Amino acid sequence: MYRLYDSAISGNAYKVRLLLHKLSLPVERIEMNVDDGSTRQAGFLARNPVGQVPVLELGDGSFLAQSNAILVYLAEGTRFWPSDRLTRARGLQWMFFEQYNHEPTIAVVRHCIAHLGWTADREPLPGKIAGGYRALGIMDDHLKTHDFFAGRSFSVADIALYAYTHVADEGGFDLTPYPALRAWLKRVSEDDRHIAITA
Amino acid sequence: MYRLYDSAISGNAYKVRLLLHKLSLPVERIEMNVDDGSTRQAGFLARNPVGQVPVLELGDGSFLAQSNAILVYLAEGTRFWPSDRLTRARGLQWMFFEQYNHEPTIAVVRHCIAHLGWTADREPLPGKIAGGYRALGIMDDHLKTHDFFAGRSFSVADIALYAYTHVADEGGFDLTPYPALRAWLKRVSEDDRHIAITA
Repeated sequence: MYRLYDSAISGNAYKVRLLLHKLSLPVERIEMNVDDGSTRQAGFLARNPVGQVPVLELGDGSFLAQSNAILVYLAEGTRFWPSDRLTRARGLQWMFFEQYNHEPTIAVVRHCIAHLGWTADREPLPGKIAGGYRALGIMDDHLKTHDFFAGRSFSVADIALYAYTHVADEGGFDLTPYPALRAWLKRVSEDDRHIAITA
Repeated sequence: MYRLYDSAISGNAYKVRLLLHKLSLPVERIEMNVDDGSTRQAGFLARNPVGQVPVLELGDGSFLAQSNAILVYLAEGTRFWPSDRLTRARGLQWMFFEQYNHEPTIAVVRHCIAHLGWTADREPLPGKIAGGYRALGIMDDHLKTHDFFAGRSFSVADIALYAYTHVADEGGFDLTPYPALRAWLKRVSEDDRHIAITA
């Protein structure tokens, strides 16, 4: 039995919920408030020194943090993690892109606008909005000639990138110019045992 | 034979050079200028749409980007990648930490101060310096009770975190308050077949 330190508004936490559901793995969810500083208290820092959700507590009482590391941990040996070495590395390439180029722009803009009520012209949002559109363009270019991000099948790389892309509109991002990306969002949502971020 | 699109001043590129050397894998190095926009030209973007070094060209002509994804690709099946599933995930946890919390602070501060000649009070450096010290503190806390980052042995997680930590002083970071971290830097530099970032 897994325990997930979770947040309903976190796309990073949603990645883990989505994969646990696809794998039919039961989980106890502990909802954390990511805005009131409670993930920076000593009790939570003992689970993840970085002070972020999600954190997955394993059956032996150990804790695993970083959404994309949790995804790989859960996916190993399943259809969600490629069997080919280069395809696995390609999945990691996109998952590091997600954490370096995509999450710090698209997720931060969404959080500030949709949850904190900021306007889009407040610093540092203008630069992050531009960076977010650059990330969306890179994804769309890839998807013009590929159905998924790592090889020919749905994998955790798709889950990692779907989480904040499919709610990018909540941060004001317009996905109209990216038809290949929009077709991929639909493909991901049609994979078996999909659940919504609000589930 | 590998070909590495490289930069002598990039810690991310050094990670790959260091592991290739440890694995006794020959490589042809193509030095890129990371400041004049040449990695944002169409020719290079065809190798890595994000426009960053390092990029590893494989024997079959395909390209792999994202330093930490390259590390895992090269390390699989060697002593540098843990054989245990949870220990591998722990390594990925620290490698995602490196790209989310450590590189965007410590590496960016070093680049702006040591290579672009900025002063430490120029925006956005003050916030990045604070974030860098927070990352160093998290590493030091871990190293008070662990010799390495993933399990009990040296792995690519150590290479990933070593790359910019050992040159953090070039960005003005003072490592004196972190004795466990300094002892780990020495352990990493004493692992077999170590080479300097300037090699």
